[in-house]
Amino acid sequence: MWRVSQRPDIARLIISCPDQHGIVAAVSELIAELGGNIIALDQYSTGLEGGRFFQRTVFHLPGFAQRRNEIEQTVRERLAGPFAMEFKLTDAAAPKRVAIFASKTDHCLLDLLWRHRRGELPMEIPVVISNHPDLEEDVRRFGIDYVHVPVQKDNKSAAEAQHLEILRGRVDLVVLARYMQILSPEFLEEVAVPVINIHHSFLPAFIGAGPYQKAKDRGVKLIGATAHYVTEDLDEGPIIEQDVIRVSHADDVAQLTRYGADVERAVLSRAVKWHCEDRVIRDNNTTIVF
Amino acid sequence: MWRVSQRPDIARLIISCPDQHGIVAAVSELIAELGGNIIALDQYSTGLEGGRFFQRTVFHLPGFAQRRNEIEQTVRERLAGPFAMEFKLTDAAAPKRVAIFASKTDHCLLDLLWRHRRGELPMEIPVVISNHPDLEEDVRRFGIDYVHVPVQKDNKSAAEAQHLEILRGRVDLVVLARYMQILSPEFLEEVAVPVINIHHSFLPAFIGAGPYQKAKDRGVKLIGATAHYVTEDLDEGPIIEQDVIRVSHADDVAQLTRYGADVERAVLSRAVKWHCEDRVIRDNNTTIVF
Amino acid sequence: MWRVSQRPDIARLIISCPDQHGIVAAVSELIAELGGNIIALDQYSTGLEGGRFFQRTVFHLPGFAQRRNEIEQTVRERLAGPFAMEFKLTDAAAPKRVAIFASKTDHCLLDLLWRHRRGELPMEIPVVISNHPDLEEDVRRFGIDYVHVPVQKDNKSAAEAQHLEILRGRVDLVVLARYMQILSPEFLEEVAVPVINIHHSFLPAFIGAGPYQKAKDRGVKLIGATAHYVTEDLDEGPIIEQDVIRVSHADDVAQLTRYGADVERAVLSRAVKWHCEDRVIRDNNTTIVF
Amino acid sequence: MWRVSQRPDIARLIISCPDQHGIVAAVSELIAELGGNIIALDQYSTGLEGGRFFQRTVFHLPGFAQRRNEIEQTVRERLAGPFAMEFKLTDAAAPKRVAIFASKTDHCLLDLLWRHRRGELPMEIPVVISNHPDLEEDVRRFGIDYVHVPVQKDNKSAAEAQHLEILRGRVDLVVLARYMQILSPEFLEEVAVPVINIHHSFLPAFIGAGPYQKAKDRGVKLIGATAHYVTEDLDEGPIIEQDVIRVSHADDVAQLTRYGADVERAVLSRAVKWHCEDRVIRDNNTTIVF
Repeated sequence: MWRVSQRPDIARLIISCPDQHGIVAAVSELIAELGGNIIALDQYSTGLEGGRFFQRTVFHLPGFAQRRNEIEQTVRERLAGPFAMEFKLTDAAAPKRVAIFASKTDHCLLDLLWRHRRGELPMEIPVVISNHPDLEEDVRRFGIDYVHVPVQKDNKSAAEAQHLEILRGRVDLVVLARYMQILSPEFLEEVAVPVINIHHSFLPAFIGAGPYQKAKDRGVKLIGATAHYVTEDLDEGPIIEQDVIRVSHADDVAQLTRYGADVERAVLSRAVKWHCEDRVIRDNNTTIVF
Repeated sequence: MWRVSQRPDIARLIISCPDQHGIVAAVSELIAELGGNIIALDQYSTGLEGGRFFQRTVFHLPGFAQRRNEIEQTVRERLAGPFAMEFKLTDAAAPKRVAIFASKTDHCLLDLLWRHRRGELPMEIPVVISNHPDLEEDVRRFGIDYVHVPVQKDNKSAAEAQHLEILRGRVDLVVLARYMQILSPEFLEEVAVPVINIHHSFLPAFIGAGPYQKAKDRGVKLIGATAHYVTEDLDEGPIIEQDVIRVSHADDVAQLTRYGADVERAVLSRAVKWHCEDRVIRDNNTTIVF
Repeated sequence: MWRVSQRPDIARLIISCPDQHGIVAAVSELIAELGGNIIALDQYSTGLEGGRFFQRTVFHLPGFAQRRNEIEQTVRERLAGPFAMEFKLTDAAAPKRVAIFASKTDHCLLDLLWRHRRGELPMEIPVVISNHPDLEEDVRRFGIDYVHVPVQKDNKSAAEAQHLEILRGRVDLVVLARYMQILSPEFLEEVAVPVINIHHSFLPAFIGAGPYQKAKDRGVKLIGATAHYVTEDLDEGPIIEQDVIRVSHADDVAQLTRYGADVERAVLSRAVKWHCEDRVIRDNNTTIVF
Repeated sequence: MWRVSQRPDIARLIISCPDQHGIVAAVSELIAELGGNIIALDQYSTGLEGGRFFQRTVFHLPGFAQRRNEIEQTVRERLAGPFAMEFKLTDAAAPKRVAIFASKTDHCLLDLLWRHRRGELPMEIPVVISNHPDLEEDVRRFGIDYVHVPVQKDNKSAAEAQHLEILRGRVDLVVLARYMQILSPEFLEEVAVPVINIHHSFLPAFIGAGPYQKAKDRGVKLIGATAHYVTEDLDEGPIIEQDVIRVSHADDVAQLTRYGADVERAVLSRAVKWHCEDRVIRDNNTTIVF
């Protein structure tokens, strides 16, 4: 009943280009000409003079899956060329393939698996990878593969090689659901798909390890969590989503951690959902979320 | 510095019509053909089959103010006719003319006057009307006319006649900023512009008078406020905006009233701002807020 | 790491009585005399003249479990008598025994089971009872008994008799985690423990069935959920906790239901936690939450 | 109607001391013995072993104002000595005397003046001091003195000397309502009363100048404000209150500033109110807010 609409014949066109006159008209004319009907359209410009334009267009087009290559080619010729446009054309019925990395903590992982089972997240989960064996049973109960790849200080690159072997050609996105290892720049380059992390603070406050302890020490009255794309610079990648919860002087670090877990799982699930719906566009080190 | 952008040459086209193929394309083509450039576009459909389609398009078109009649005529012929469309074409540089009604309570009124002075609200305030003299000095300090029209049980229709005389041809919107009198159906029909009211509860909870007392009696843990268009059915009009604030068993009715005042002024100011930016469209007894 | 503190030797004394001078002093003197040390103390009065006074006192007292009967007797003689006081004395190390009722929807149930497994909720769950078989596997994997008691129109009292047989002497609280059957007044009287329900609206708005449809029809801008004690009057019992989430015109009923599920599970989990920590006191048809 | 209760005969006793057995009992016994009745009592301990204990007790005691010196002496002998306690005894009917510093921006200043006029804030405002003349008329219409003390780079200490002359013996608190000058350590020492500042970010994020620009550059999805006590270390003092508001990629810095202003004024007003009600206790570089 709740299943996210994955009707066939729904396409999404995500574009970005230097802002200029007539883009919306050109896109909508082309879609109409191709026989499509626009269902949703969001756009954003950083400024008409020298700014950049971003647009997400969702349209219904009978037989889209079959005509996809032809349509992609048409978009390339008629829009991407003339407007110096980058674009992505996706089929809303084709779920993203998402690998989840976890360690010992279960709240973010379970929330994703459970929402996936309910049909809230338009994705497939080919595998969960963990550096610990603890969560295996929890994951297998959802009918999902669990691979335990131990990571020690001296075998990190071997572990990452194993990760890459598991992932190669099988995933469109990697999600770090409280995975407590830092990914190397080499891994990020090799894996060649976006990686989303959940940081347990309201970034850029409390960068690095132990944010709840730092929050307690600083005496903040709200704690938060941040979902962001992973880049080489730890905790500095483009932010997708954030949220906070009110705390008091009486909450110790364990209680902050407990409250924080609720925020973390909510924020990460929203970020993953939006990414899988092609709603998130990177603009340098920030994101546009349509 | 903060002044809401009221650059010239910005137009807004608000449309609604039965949903059908090609509306977005037709609108954007026409705007491009007229020499306009789309800045923002929001749309919503209640369903392709038998549903209704709503769109708000903001576009830059040099010389819009001078060409307005011609453009309106073109929209009528090329869009409104073929698509069975209702539409409104407005000049973003032309502020709405807003009359505010108040009684003795100042928080909603002062918040509107102060935001107006800061340039946050794209509107003019030709007059404040009150059934009490109390707030006259506060209003005049903002350089705004204050008319005291006493309302007693037996002179209500005379008072409303006086209201209509003051308002006729001078306003595009009436805002009830905690005005403690009920407007008659005759007044609503005669005034012939939208009327926005702030109700001091999270409607549809606690309809009618004394909502904070009712909230205390029921023991709710959140109290709220609701801005809505006024219709003949008291507290039943289309809701524009709502918000809530957390309260506890320890808060008495006076404290609820105090907390509630903050929510009321925030909610009403947002609703008025959105209305004046042509973001709010009525759809039967609900609203679409773009 | 997260386990809720269930250290031994922590007692909670919950009292209510007509407000009068010297109650706080009398309670704290007695606790000191008994060898206890107050850790936390909350109190609330509805008014000194003719009002009612409520207090929750948490204190550390070595050997409390062994001395409990003696202490209870002392409180009865020294406090309850003189102050016309109702009181409850509980051992913080003794978890409440909680039966959960569910139907087919899993979100509230699973959230309670997860939090329970993480040690967030100071309770035991002797049994989950459902009128459907659907959630059996989900529950059993937590090592918790699942009893399927079908309820049809014509066997309702037989079903309730079966419920009572299962529950008798085994539970301190019943939680309705989206249990879609109405409990009879007879059941409520017989079960003789508090019953907490989660209603999927911001009560008192949208009482009864189908609140998300009603919310859509009324066009509200926030939806909510309410945890309350069950009384004979449906949806009218004392409210323990409420929360809301922002929605828009673009959300259909399925989406409201999805958003609402997150609010429901959060609100119910908080209410159950607070109840199990003896933080919630009924005061006629409202609650005091310390 | 809304006026904050300033009934006579209400006293507040704020204490802090090494945690140890029997403090609550000792305090409540003494108050009972003096003829007082406890109305509200909050306490917090950082830990029984080697921790620190804090308590705020509000009690009704007929003739408190007349007996104040005697009672203060009794508290000193019977509590402060034996428990190595720091304490403060205040008369709830005696409003705090608060000087407000402002620059050119009006939102925080006006919000305090409005709330003060409505009787929401238990304080007097002997003077508003500004380094600019702009807000003089706004302030004087509330019947409050406005002193313009220009501050240039080379006359800062002269200006601060003038500030001190104005303030000496006349104030219990200084509030910086978006005052855009840094106070010198010498001033802070000389003024010898607490100073509350509002910082326009969610500290510790975006320390220093231009936080909304920094927030835009970092692409955060929430912006916030922080009220804190001023210390020698800029933006590092104990946090009293914080709040946030959701923003999007589409909001430019001017819009963030506008949204932020609403959060700033709400947060500062709450912090000032709580301080004036003796609810805020400093504990090293954090605060306890009862």
